[in-house]
Amino acid sequence: MANSDIDHQLVIQCASHEYPIYIGNSLLSDPELLRRHVVGNQVLIVTNDTIAPLYLAGIKQAFSAMQCNEVVLPDGEEYKNQRSLLAIYDALIKNRHHRDTTLMALGGGVVGDITGFAAATYQRGVRFIQLPTTLLAQVDASVGGKTAINHPAGKNMIGSFHQPQAVIMDLNTLSTLPEREFHAGFAEVIKYGFLVGGDFFDRLTQVIESDELTASSPELVHLIARCCQIKAGFVEEDERETGRRALLNLGHTFAHALEACTQYQRWLHGEAVAIGLYCAVLLSQQLGYIDKSILTLTDRLLQGAKLPCRIPKEINLLDLQSLMLNDKKITNKTLRFVLMRAPGDCYLESGVSADCLRHVLMNAVEGD
Amino acid sequence: MANSDIDHQLVIQCASHEYPIYIGNSLLSDPELLRRHVVGNQVLIVTNDTIAPLYLAGIKQAFSAMQCNEVVLPDGEEYKNQRSLLAIYDALIKNRHHRDTTLMALGGGVVGDITGFAAATYQRGVRFIQLPTTLLAQVDASVGGKTAINHPAGKNMIGSFHQPQAVIMDLNTLSTLPEREFHAGFAEVIKYGFLVGGDFFDRLTQVIESDELTASSPELVHLIARCCQIKAGFVEEDERETGRRALLNLGHTFAHALEACTQYQRWLHGEAVAIGLYCAVLLSQQLGYIDKSILTLTDRLLQGAKLPCRIPKEINLLDLQSLMLNDKKITNKTLRFVLMRAPGDCYLESGVSADCLRHVLMNAVEGD
Repeated sequence: MANSDIDHQLVIQCASHEYPIYIGNSLLSDPELLRRHVVGNQVLIVTNDTIAPLYLAGIKQAFSAMQCNEVVLPDGEEYKNQRSLLAIYDALIKNRHHRDTTLMALGGGVVGDITGFAAATYQRGVRFIQLPTTLLAQVDASVGGKTAINHPAGKNMIGSFHQPQAVIMDLNTLSTLPEREFHAGFAEVIKYGFLVGGDFFDRLTQVIESDELTASSPELVHLIARCCQIKAGFVEEDERETGRRALLNLGHTFAHALEACTQYQRWLHGEAVAIGLYCAVLLSQQLGYIDKSILTLTDRLLQGAKLPCRIPKEINLLDLQSLMLNDKKITNKTLRFVLMRAPGDCYLESGVSADCLRHVLMNAVEGD
Repeated sequence: MANSDIDHQLVIQCASHEYPIYIGNSLLSDPELLRRHVVGNQVLIVTNDTIAPLYLAGIKQAFSAMQCNEVVLPDGEEYKNQRSLLAIYDALIKNRHHRDTTLMALGGGVVGDITGFAAATYQRGVRFIQLPTTLLAQVDASVGGKTAINHPAGKNMIGSFHQPQAVIMDLNTLSTLPEREFHAGFAEVIKYGFLVGGDFFDRLTQVIESDELTASSPELVHLIARCCQIKAGFVEEDERETGRRALLNLGHTFAHALEACTQYQRWLHGEAVAIGLYCAVLLSQQLGYIDKSILTLTDRLLQGAKLPCRIPKEINLLDLQSLMLNDKKITNKTLRFVLMRAPGDCYLESGVSADCLRHVLMNAVEGD
């Protein structure tokens, strides 16, 4: 068994709850750490069929002295649905898990979101711990307490806010991550760059352009920790997204509609976010907030991170625009977009006309 | 249109939220009151096929100037399930309801619980208003923010805490309530009597024994208001049931198992609670906390209120006892019961053996 090595420890302090984030190497091989935030004597590990062969047996060992059950879901965004949720409830009930049980979400954003939602609603709320194994889940999905499943007509339409007891990020998991997943995670890292600008954005640009971007680069742990800190700042200030936290959705109104209109099957979430970021920057440019150089830079960053950044030709833009009207940021029947005036200066805009939006979508189609 | 007439107004002050309860006559005919706590310009009314013909058209009129949609569920505890929940989500999404929508729960406890849960989880939480039309919902289900659906293996297994914006109780609805529903509501009233004792218990005993118990008796409004006050006291102190609020479950560990083992089809919830109250008092007596006279009084009260109070012969007691092990009050694998030392003196007991429980169930079977 490897020695674990905690590089960073952050504490998230929300109004409702305070919890730690551990970042380091071999943390999933540290049974004491895995057990530290489990209170009762029951654990349910939820994971997927890609992750299970790699880590499940080792983690179960940490809980060999208590009741430990598991649910292995099929891997993929298209399984973040009602059916997978029911499989988790059924396992909890069949194995008589009580209100003092702890759910462990072992996997990427899909596993984290669905497990969190099961924990939020089983017996009106039980504890859960995030063990994110993808870059995307580490920098984004596992922090902030948003839990959800998808509906055929809209991403994350059914969910709740439910904060975990702890987040344990083992960086070693990134070394077994497929390239495609690793790159997808970078879309959220680039989003944080746009949100905060400054040194972080400059350093990120440099990392991407120098092609230093690998799962083993020493820079990575700092980038991940910084992303968690940035997100924590937004979340602590606005746990239930009544204000500033909505900025974290930069690019996501486009991304969620893209995912829904391809039945959650075509892209990893991060890939859809990459196209969404391009669209958001294009919209900002079309409205005259930024000049073309930022759009070009966005293109360079996304392509440098080996991410898609155009809408494929075969997407029906009318369907796409219609799906955007299911966005959760709509109030008073008005769609709101996160736009950018400069890296580090984003804001929420409600005055985007349907015509303007159509124009942006047309201009974001590949080959134009 | 009748003039509305607010007899009582209570304010519930939880840690998370403060909201009013209006009690009076013809309140469902008061469009201003119905609109008072609606903030956006979208409303979804959820009701059932018994209530819809009586009140739906009138209430929709109050919202004729805004988007108003409806979901009519089949009536009955057996429909408090995943399928009905999905019907509500589908209606919300199909009609493009946004985060500033308001759900209106028009009906009894089933409609209130399921609508509340849909509101808790649609887009991570939207507003809802309770319009309880049964005695049981008025005295119990609509106050306190517990929302849920049933699972085949356990009552209210999936749910959350989500407080309404307001509760509007129109006492006129009781005059159209079937006798059986009216009596079922009295089971919860008797429960409050056991919980607080004193004058309330004495007056309640008197009302039941003098056979004054009808939907039109002037006493009723005071009883309802007092029950809401009692419940509010427990809820304000302990919104998420980490302590004293569990006492409100007097009789419910038995009742929930009885409901589950008959597929939620045999009894109204209140009827199962009546049998559960008898079992809880019998258990208290068997453990030596109360003498036989209280058990006899319990019998007299439940029968006086025309409620069942014995377990039917055909119930398999092993199945029943097994279902009790899914109870939500279990911690550390130990089942806890609310027991009574005297009316007004109830407490949570974790030291009940399986043998003792079996004995109680056997002694509670009809004809013994």
